[in-house]
Formats: sequence, structure tokens, C-alpha cells
Amino acid sequence: MSEKIKAGIVGATGYTGVELLRLLTIHPNVEVSAITSRSEAGVAIADYFPSLRGIYDLTFQTPDEAALDQCDVVFFATPNGIAMKEAPALLAKGVRIVDLSADFRIQDIPTWEKWYGMTHACPETVSQAVYGLCEMNRDSIKTAQIVANPGCYPTCVSLPLLPLLQTGRLKNGLPLIADCKSGVSGAGRKANIGSLLCEAGDNFKAYGIGGHRHLPEIKQTINGLQSNIAEQFVFVPHLTPMIRGMHATLYLQLEDGCNPHEILRDFYAGSPFVDIMPAGSTPETRSVRGANICRISIQRAPQSNTWIALSVIDNLVKGAAGQAVQNMNIMFGFEESAGLQAAPLMP
Amino acid sequence: MSEKIKAGIVGATGYTGVELLRLLTIHPNVEVSAITSRSEAGVAIADYFPSLRGIYDLTFQTPDEAALDQCDVVFFATPNGIAMKEAPALLAKGVRIVDLSADFRIQDIPTWEKWYGMTHACPETVSQAVYGLCEMNRDSIKTAQIVANPGCYPTCVSLPLLPLLQTGRLKNGLPLIADCKSGVSGAGRKANIGSLLCEAGDNFKAYGIGGHRHLPEIKQTINGLQSNIAEQFVFVPHLTPMIRGMHATLYLQLEDGCNPHEILRDFYAGSPFVDIMPAGSTPETRSVRGANICRISIQRAPQSNTWIALSVIDNLVKGAAGQAVQNMNIMFGFEESAGLQAAPLMP
Amino acid sequence: MSEKIKAGIVGATGYTGVELLRLLTIHPNVEVSAITSRSEAGVAIADYFPSLRGIYDLTFQTPDEAALDQCDVVFFATPNGIAMKEAPALLAKGVRIVDLSADFRIQDIPTWEKWYGMTHACPETVSQAVYGLCEMNRDSIKTAQIVANPGCYPTCVSLPLLPLLQTGRLKNGLPLIADCKSGVSGAGRKANIGSLLCEAGDNFKAYGIGGHRHLPEIKQTINGLQSNIAEQFVFVPHLTPMIRGMHATLYLQLEDGCNPHEILRDFYAGSPFVDIMPAGSTPETRSVRGANICRISIQRAPQSNTWIALSVIDNLVKGAAGQAVQNMNIMFGFEESAGLQAAPLMP
Amino acid sequence: MSEKIKAGIVGATGYTGVELLRLLTIHPNVEVSAITSRSEAGVAIADYFPSLRGIYDLTFQTPDEAALDQCDVVFFATPNGIAMKEAPALLAKGVRIVDLSADFRIQDIPTWEKWYGMTHACPETVSQAVYGLCEMNRDSIKTAQIVANPGCYPTCVSLPLLPLLQTGRLKNGLPLIADCKSGVSGAGRKANIGSLLCEAGDNFKAYGIGGHRHLPEIKQTINGLQSNIAEQFVFVPHLTPMIRGMHATLYLQLEDGCNPHEILRDFYAGSPFVDIMPAGSTPETRSVRGANICRISIQRAPQSNTWIALSVIDNLVKGAAGQAVQNMNIMFGFEESAGLQAAPLMP
Repeated sequence: MSEKIKAGIVGATGYTGVELLRLLTIHPNVEVSAITSRSEAGVAIADYFPSLRGIYDLTFQTPDEAALDQCDVVFFATPNGIAMKEAPALLAKGVRIVDLSADFRIQDIPTWEKWYGMTHACPETVSQAVYGLCEMNRDSIKTAQIVANPGCYPTCVSLPLLPLLQTGRLKNGLPLIADCKSGVSGAGRKANIGSLLCEAGDNFKAYGIGGHRHLPEIKQTINGLQSNIAEQFVFVPHLTPMIRGMHATLYLQLEDGCNPHEILRDFYAGSPFVDIMPAGSTPETRSVRGANICRISIQRAPQSNTWIALSVIDNLVKGAAGQAVQNMNIMFGFEESAGLQAAPLMP
Repeated sequence: MSEKIKAGIVGATGYTGVELLRLLTIHPNVEVSAITSRSEAGVAIADYFPSLRGIYDLTFQTPDEAALDQCDVVFFATPNGIAMKEAPALLAKGVRIVDLSADFRIQDIPTWEKWYGMTHACPETVSQAVYGLCEMNRDSIKTAQIVANPGCYPTCVSLPLLPLLQTGRLKNGLPLIADCKSGVSGAGRKANIGSLLCEAGDNFKAYGIGGHRHLPEIKQTINGLQSNIAEQFVFVPHLTPMIRGMHATLYLQLEDGCNPHEILRDFYAGSPFVDIMPAGSTPETRSVRGANICRISIQRAPQSNTWIALSVIDNLVKGAAGQAVQNMNIMFGFEESAGLQAAPLMP
Repeated sequence: MSEKIKAGIVGATGYTGVELLRLLTIHPNVEVSAITSRSEAGVAIADYFPSLRGIYDLTFQTPDEAALDQCDVVFFATPNGIAMKEAPALLAKGVRIVDLSADFRIQDIPTWEKWYGMTHACPETVSQAVYGLCEMNRDSIKTAQIVANPGCYPTCVSLPLLPLLQTGRLKNGLPLIADCKSGVSGAGRKANIGSLLCEAGDNFKAYGIGGHRHLPEIKQTINGLQSNIAEQFVFVPHLTPMIRGMHATLYLQLEDGCNPHEILRDFYAGSPFVDIMPAGSTPETRSVRGANICRISIQRAPQSNTWIALSVIDNLVKGAAGQAVQNMNIMFGFEESAGLQAAPLMP
Repeated sequence: MSEKIKAGIVGATGYTGVELLRLLTIHPNVEVSAITSRSEAGVAIADYFPSLRGIYDLTFQTPDEAALDQCDVVFFATPNGIAMKEAPALLAKGVRIVDLSADFRIQDIPTWEKWYGMTHACPETVSQAVYGLCEMNRDSIKTAQIVANPGCYPTCVSLPLLPLLQTGRLKNGLPLIADCKSGVSGAGRKANIGSLLCEAGDNFKAYGIGGHRHLPEIKQTINGLQSNIAEQFVFVPHLTPMIRGMHATLYLQLEDGCNPHEILRDFYAGSPFVDIMPAGSTPETRSVRGANICRISIQRAPQSNTWIALSVIDNLVKGAAGQAVQNMNIMFGFEESAGLQAAPLMP
């Protein structure tokens, strides 16, 4: 076995950070050498996350102590606005970066600044960043110095659309609707009332109808593939009382005569982490729990011209940390599935 | 206080049956005088449902023993196919009926027989039955001998549509989409694998995409209100890991210039159980938990011509037993809200 | 119907506050005339708790604006340390008080100050307060000016013990163990990480083993009834992934030959809210969901001298707001069950 | 890498069967060569368990077709009463067996027959079977032809007791109490009403107080280690609304002066799957979700002579399929932790 590369994780106290730690446990090519957290500096990871007792000997460090510039790759699992400040110095030292936050996802800086409510700290790095939807940009990810890991909703929504948009199959002028449902871990490990078990449990609701930050990210992907479609795109996220999991129900108006199931199946034939299910299937979120898989089915609504695509991911894996590991694998020439082969947890 | 009417419940071992019992506990005008169950005959209700210990002294009886013909009203909380056999004899004796099953919901007998997979036992009674969506048919319910209590999805989907269809506001030739999410109690109190906590818990999925029995019921309502719209109607139900609650997300294409919020608000001004929320609201299912309320909001999707209506009910209350009580109240001239005034359970 | 008394609720933004509002909705003798919250002053209750839309027209006020001294009764649903400062002025004006916080529960001031980590602001009022475990102190509650509403664990643990302690049935020198399990709402409506759905969901753990504040409260009750037993009392609370509900499993060593089931049944014969279940029963928390009931069973462990008592309550009802209403009913000479007759929510 | 052994799984449609399949996915020394199910014969595993799509190409076979006698090891993940009929023929052909059912756990045949309500089909094989609590019987497991994999409760309860019983630290004549809580998957993948999400969800209850089948199994272990203790053992299982996870709270009366934390820490120093946590810890079930770990803490109750031991496992892993793999590893001389190194799923 070849020597392992060194990985650092910035902001490892959140759900995407601890998920990176979990996934990298069994990765054959990577050793986690540094984890940072300003608030928890000095605390052993095993004390903070008892699930990792006996697995990692690491202790949280401040970013300064952590010698991140000695890493081969650094993951930013930080709130928005951190990576854009800290990435340039690391890039300058040759460290490659996978940013799980939104800082480098939107190429149009004014759009980013409007939706994220801050001034971008390094617009010049944005144009250099590759959008890390692996199945769309596999080739450019190989050589990327910095990868912008996609949001969870954009991953779940874009994967079924990608082959159809790329071949121009969506009809102009008709609504393209993404009705999406997320588990509560999508809100992060933050002490807010709305994510309490007693508030989010045994409850279902829409949110962010007036505008969710993942809307411009999805529109950017659509626009890059087929023109005049993004305008008709409608996106409604919902909160569902489960920990992990994301489900997109897409309502599509497709060119007559096309066979979308075949288009998807062919497009993803070589992709280990996209599973096009048989017609008539209804993928369920738990079928990907803990795993870096997107399962998709597509079928025509009964007695209707509308097509229904269903897409499920684990928001913390293919929607965050798993895709980040997949991006790293591609960047460093590892097996694309290295460290990502454990089966989903069921039940 | 006037003398109480006598109510019988056929099939009181399921969720809609026990919910009827719960709601009638505090009803000022009704006394439950008989409950039937073939399988549990002889068992005291307090032993079967410990939540009702100390509240009801009733014992399950076989339908024969129960002297249902002595009741003023009989609720059928039975599987499909029972009420159509037993209702005619009761009607002949002057007993009024609220059927919570699907037996009398569809006026077109061949359609019913196709979707429910059996021959209808009393087609002539179907034409006599009033569809018990209270807010649509309040006047005809008053004098009905038999009311077909609507399905949960049809209630949740139809209430926001009703005022818009009635005034002809939906555009022809464009999709009308109902993306619906239900708690697991909608599947009933039946021992099937798919409803186990370990199967339905921490999981989200679509189901019945090929065709759900509530589809023709909703189409019948649409067709009765605005023509040429039912053809474009798409309905996808989903299962969400909670006990009670139903959420419909409707995507509507409306005539230009109409103000749907105002239309809904005006239409439901006199309806105690439909709450049109302020623009920008996102109703949540727990805000109606245990209560006979439908909360609705409507707004335009950002940068789009599509309107989004959100509608929530408790599937066991406004979607079943609560609406049945409301129907009974209307039939017998009680206060429409009698027995239905307890506040939702939160959290 | 007689004229209604006026009730005020201080701190109505938490779970016990909103539960008081829910229960008082259908109370025939009470009108809520004022709700206070410093942080939410000016906000309509219907905007803050959508479940109460259409039910209350009230707006949160600051304590000063609220004219609480015009109320007949004031409920404190506040964090510990508030009522002890604000109660004396209200008492002086003849307002009667039910305090749902811990400020007046412990008669021994040094003990209180040690466990609650603050100096008591009005020790003289403590001796005047009646401990509001209704079934223990019904008579003194009738004339109390201020009632200290018990904690949830103390209620759930004390009710099965009460008749046995009072008749001196517990053996000296042997352990008396209370293994208790609570739903997450017991932690209140506070934004802390540990109560997030993603932390408390699908998880079970003990907590507070080193010492929980309800320990001295239970010991005080035990000490008042049978001597030399409190020393051997062991209390371990656990957090269970549900919203409402509390379950105590008590392991008792009883005097030979006693029939504890009979003792309990006789003791609670006149108590509408304590249900002694048949031997062999296992009460479940959902059988009291939303209702002011404590269900208890007691039986001998197989092939053992140890007795097992099981006790369930809804921590927000009999463990908080419901018992507060019951106390108010007793204080004002209403029916003890007024406003508390709605059946538990099942499922 | 050495050649892989062939494993068969009998009864792979249940939760322990599918968990075996999940765990063996990443096992370096084992290939699953046959899975059987009479009811699902002919169905591809990927169609039955979508979580395993793309991982296994296997199809369920009848036991006859499956050529189990070509396997090196066969796991029985069957209901009780199957393995005792089918094991002898396989043993005769030199196939080694890990039985996850209860057929070979109890050495005293009359006791087994009383608790399991059937006549044992091969009593002579029982005496040959090794009880597969790995940390107790590691040496005899190495050479066992057939291992009786322990029940989930017995594993969770016995591991903290083992070092204390072995050194005779429990006091005679005083109660030894195990208050246990299990997730719903412990009830298996069976269509029974009590395991429905709407029955077991948001609910907590004791069950099996009159006598649970795991009681004689635990007593057998206790009796084998310290005499006169089993008589005072009390075991109360509870059902908690989560999918996976088991928590035992043990109340112990220990010889004066002993340091149980040290005794446990020393005893388990060489055991990779038992984690003795620092004093004052409260292990939580999710810290072992999906992993073959038992975490234990022990501490004295405040102001008391009673010691409290807390023990958590994933009932499907260390309580079933994981321990079965661990047993197989020991039997075949693999690394004890082979295939069991993935980190727990958190959150």
C-alpha cells in the first residue's frame, strides 16, 4: 500500500466535519493529521464525539497551531465565510482544498454576495475553483487545486437533471419543479429552536419559500447545460422529521418521444455512486443512509405528460462529506470509491 | 342542554375509530351507545385502548348484537367494502350514516370498481350519498341521510383548490401538481411491514406513483368545479416518518392578475375550520395536531409564474374522524364546531 | 355558568406556558387575561404559536404592562429564580399563585440554595407555600395562597410511593430505586445542542447521575411520610427520544404480606387522575399523552422479593401544566377535573 | 490476501440477516456464497433490500438449493426452532455454525423447553455448543464447531457484570437489578401491531415483566460465575422509540472497598470491542450505532451504597450480527476486529 496523504479538517465540530472523520476511518490512502476548532481547542476528539473513542487520537487545535500547510489536502467544514479567508494562503503553499461550505460555489460574485449577505474575500480564487459535482466535472476535478463541494439540495436535484439538460430534453416555457425534503441534520449542529426534537419531531413543513440559498446554485448548473430553463425553475425545500436523508421529487416536461430512463442509465453507466433504479421504483432515503450514493428513478405520471424523477441521497454523505471524499479521490488519483464502500445502514 | 343523540361506531378498533371515540368524549350533544368489532367482540374498550380507561364503559359487540338500528347516527370506520353492504338496511330504518371508508365517495360506479377492485354492492345508494367535504357541500350535508366522508389527501388537496376552481382561475393546458406528504397513521392500524417503526422511521419515500386511489376522488372534485383541469392533475403521495399529519404542496398556474390569497380568505371567511394564513407563512403539520383544522397559505414562487399553495391537516382529524364529526354536526343542526374546540397538541 | 376568574401566565413562551394556554382553552371557569414575556412583548400569541391561531387574541406583554395584580390567579411558567422575586408583591395584593418553577418546592432553604445555585429571594414565602402534589395535599391546597407545583419526576415517582410510604410499608436498609425516563420536552424550549432532533433522536442515555435537582424534592416527600427511607433512595433519570411522556420504574422492597396493589387502589379510589391498573399491566406513556393522568401498575418480579411499580405521566400535563390547572381547580373550589377532561391523544 | 472462506446465511430476510450482509461487505476474509429464505426464494437480494443494490449479486434460495454444506461457516439468522433441526446435518459435514437464534444458548434442556415452549430437537448438540459471549469464552470459541450467539439483553447486561462476578464482588442477599431499554428492531422484522411506528413511536413502556426469555440466559451466565446471586436478579426490559440501540442500567450492591471501575478497565484491557469509559460518563446508544462496541461506565450513586453501571450496545451489532462476525473471526483465526472497524454512524 502506498504512503498515505495527510488531511486536515477545519471546523470539525459540526456534522459534516465529524462525518468526514467517520468516513476517513476506513480510507486506505488518507491519514487525518489535524483537526481544528477555535472553540474546542485542546479538547480530545474522543471526548467531544464519543462515537470516535478508540479510533482517533487527535485533539482539536486552533488553526494556527494546526500546521495545516503541512497537509496534502484540507477540508473546510466551516460555516460560510471562513474558507474564503483562509484558503488563499493554503493554496499558495500548494495545499489542495475541498471546501464544503458555499464560499466557492457561485461563479458570479454579485449573485453570491446578494444571497450570502457578505462581501466575498477572494473573488479571484472563485474562478479558479471547480464545482465539485463529481459526475458533471470529473475531468476538471482531477487537476483542481480547490474544489467547491456542492450543496446537498443541488446534488440531489442536479444529478437526475444533468443527463436531460445536457441533451436538451427539457421543454421551454413550462415549469420545472423541484419539491425537496431534507432531514434535520441539514440545518447543522447548531443550537437553534427550530431544530429541537420537540419542534422538528413529528412535524412536517416547507421553509425558505421566499428564496433558499441553494436556488442560485442549482440555477447556475441548469444554465450551464441548457438555456432558457432556469427561469422556469421552482424550488421548495421541506423539513422532514428524520436525522439524515434527502429526497427530491422533480416534475419535468420533456421533449416528446425521449426515453429519460435510458438516457439516465447510459449517462451514469460508469459512475459508481449514481444508481438508476428500474422504472416503477420509489427510492427511499434509508436505502442510502450513511453511504455515498444517489438513487434515482424516473417515470411518467399516470395519464399525464408530466415526468416524475425521484432522487435520494444522504445529505451528510453524497450531499456533503462523502462527495468531498469522492472529490479528494478524484483529485489525488485514488480509486473513486476508496473509503466509500461500506454499505448503507439498514434499518 | 338538549337530550343527546345516540351514535354507533362500526369498526372501532382502527385509528379512525378510536379517534372518533376520543373526539366524542367532550361532545355536548352525542353519546356513543354502541361500538362494534367482529374480531374483538366482548372486549372492553378500556382494555383494548388504555388511553380510554375511565372514559368509556363500552364493550365491543358484533354488529348483530349492537342494535345499531337504535342509533341516530352510525359511523363506519371500516375497511372499504363493508359499509356498502351494511348501510342500506340502516338507512331503511332511518339511521343516518357517516361513512369514513371510500364506499360512497365516487359517483361513477365503474371508476370506483376499477380503483377499488370489487363490485359495488349498492350503486343506487351512491347517488344518494353526499360527498362530505363540509366547506364545499355544507347545504346538501344538512339534509343528507348518508355522507361519504372524504379521504385525507382529497381533503388536504381540495380545500386550497376549491375557491380557485370555483371561480375558474386555473389555466388550461398547464400542469397542476400536488406533492403530498402523509404521516404513517394514514396507512391504518394494520400489521404490515412497511409501517413498522424500523421501516418507516427515519425514512422518506414516495409511493403509489403508478396510481393512488385518492386520485380519482380528487379528479371528481376538480371536474365538478372547473372543466379541462383534471386532465393535467398530477398527484404524488409520500410517506413521512411521523405519526399524524399531512402536508400538500400545490404548484398552480393561475390566471394573470388574480389575487388567490384574497380569494381564499373571502371564501373561507365563515368556515371555522379553514385558516388562511398570512402571505409568506409556511403552515406546519403540528400546528393542527389533534385538531379539526386545515391551515393554508398561498404565495408566488420567487421570480416565477408558478403559485405555491401549502395546506396542512391532521389526517386523522380533518382528514377523517374530525370531519366526520363536523359532518354529523351539520346533519343534526348542532354547532358546526361542537366537540371540536380543543386546541392542537403542541409540542 | 358562573362568572370566570381571570388568569395570568408569566413566561408563556415555553412548553409549560403554551400547555397552560392549550388546557385553559376549554376550561369552563377561567379566562386567560394576560400573558407576559419580556423577550416577545408586543407579539401576538397567534403569531408565536400558530397552533393557537383563532383561539386566543392575546399579545405578550412585559410584566409591568400586564396588570397581573388584576388577576385572580397567576401561573409562573418561568425559569427558576423569577417567581421568588415577583410572587410576594402579587400575594400582597391578594392574587393567588401557582408556581410551576422550583422556587417554592423545597422547604429547607439551604438545601434549595445548594441545588439551585442561588440565594433565595423570599425564604419567608416558602414556608407559606403548599407543595402541590394534589393527591397528597388536597386539603391544604384548598386554602393556599401560593402553591409550589411539583417537578415532573417527583410527580411520577411520588404517586406510586405515597400510599406505601404513608402506611410504612417500605423496608429499612434496602435500596429504593427509581429508574426514570423522560421525553425531551422535559428539557424545555431552549436552544441547547443536546435537545436537537439530531442529538436526542434515535438515542437513549442516562444523565444527571451525579445529582439531579429533583432528587432533594423527592427525598423531602419521602421523608415526610416514612422515616429512614430517603437515605436509601437512588434516582437515575434517562432521556428517551420522544416529545412528551415520562415513565418511572420503581424497585421496591416491601414488608412481607402486604398487598400493594390493593393499598394503591384504595388510596386513589377518589382521585380522578390516578389510575391504578390491573395487576400484570404495563402502562405506556402514550396512554396519557396530552392528559392529566398518572397510570400506575405494581407487581412482584418473577421469582423475587422485589416489587416493581410502573408509573407514567405526560411530563407537560400531570408533570406540569395539567397539575397546575388541577391545583387551581382545588384552590378555587371548581370541579377538580374542570378543563381536564379531554381524552389522551392516541396514536 | 489469503483466500476467502465461504459463508452462508440462513434466514437472511430479517434484521440480523441483512445486518450480517451489511457487515460482511467490507470483511477481508469472507465471501457470502449463499443466502436462503423459503418465502423469498428466487428473489434477488438487491430487489428485497435496495440498500444492498450494487453490492451483492446473490439471490435467495431454498435451503435445499443453497448447498450450505459447501460453506465453511453458516450463520443461522432464523426464528427459534429452526437451527436445532438443521444444524446437526451441517456439523456432520464439517461446516462450522454460528447460531444467532436461541436454540443453543441454554445448557439446561428443561429450562430451554419451558421458556421456548417446544421440545428441543437435538439436546446432544447443545452441550457441544459454546456460548458466544466473546469476552467470556474467547478460548473455547476458537475451537468450537458451533457457537450459540448470545441474546442482545444478555450481552448488554453480562459484559459489565462479568469482571465483578468473576471476582466475587456482588453482595449476597441483596437485589441485583437490570433495568434495560431496547430499540424496536429488537422485535425483529415482523408484521406485528406493537412494532408499528404509530404504536411504538413517541411512546415508552415496559414489557415482559412476568418473564422474558432472556432472563434464564442471563441467570445461567451469572450462575456460572458467582453463586447465590442469580436468585436476587431482577430484569425489566422496556421498549424505547428508536430503531437501534440498547441501554442497560444496572443497580449493584458491591463488596466494600472494591474499585469496580478499575476491575472493569483491567479485565477489558485486551478486548477491542468493550470500552470502559471514564468515571462520570454516561454512554449513549448512538455512540455505538452500527458498530460492534459495548461502552460501559460505572459509578456510585450520590449519597448511597448502590453502584450504577451503564452499558450500551447496538442490539443488531454487538447484540447480534456483529458479535456473530466477531465469533467467526475468533473461530477461524482472523483478526478479531476484521470487518468490524467502521466507525459508528453519528448523528
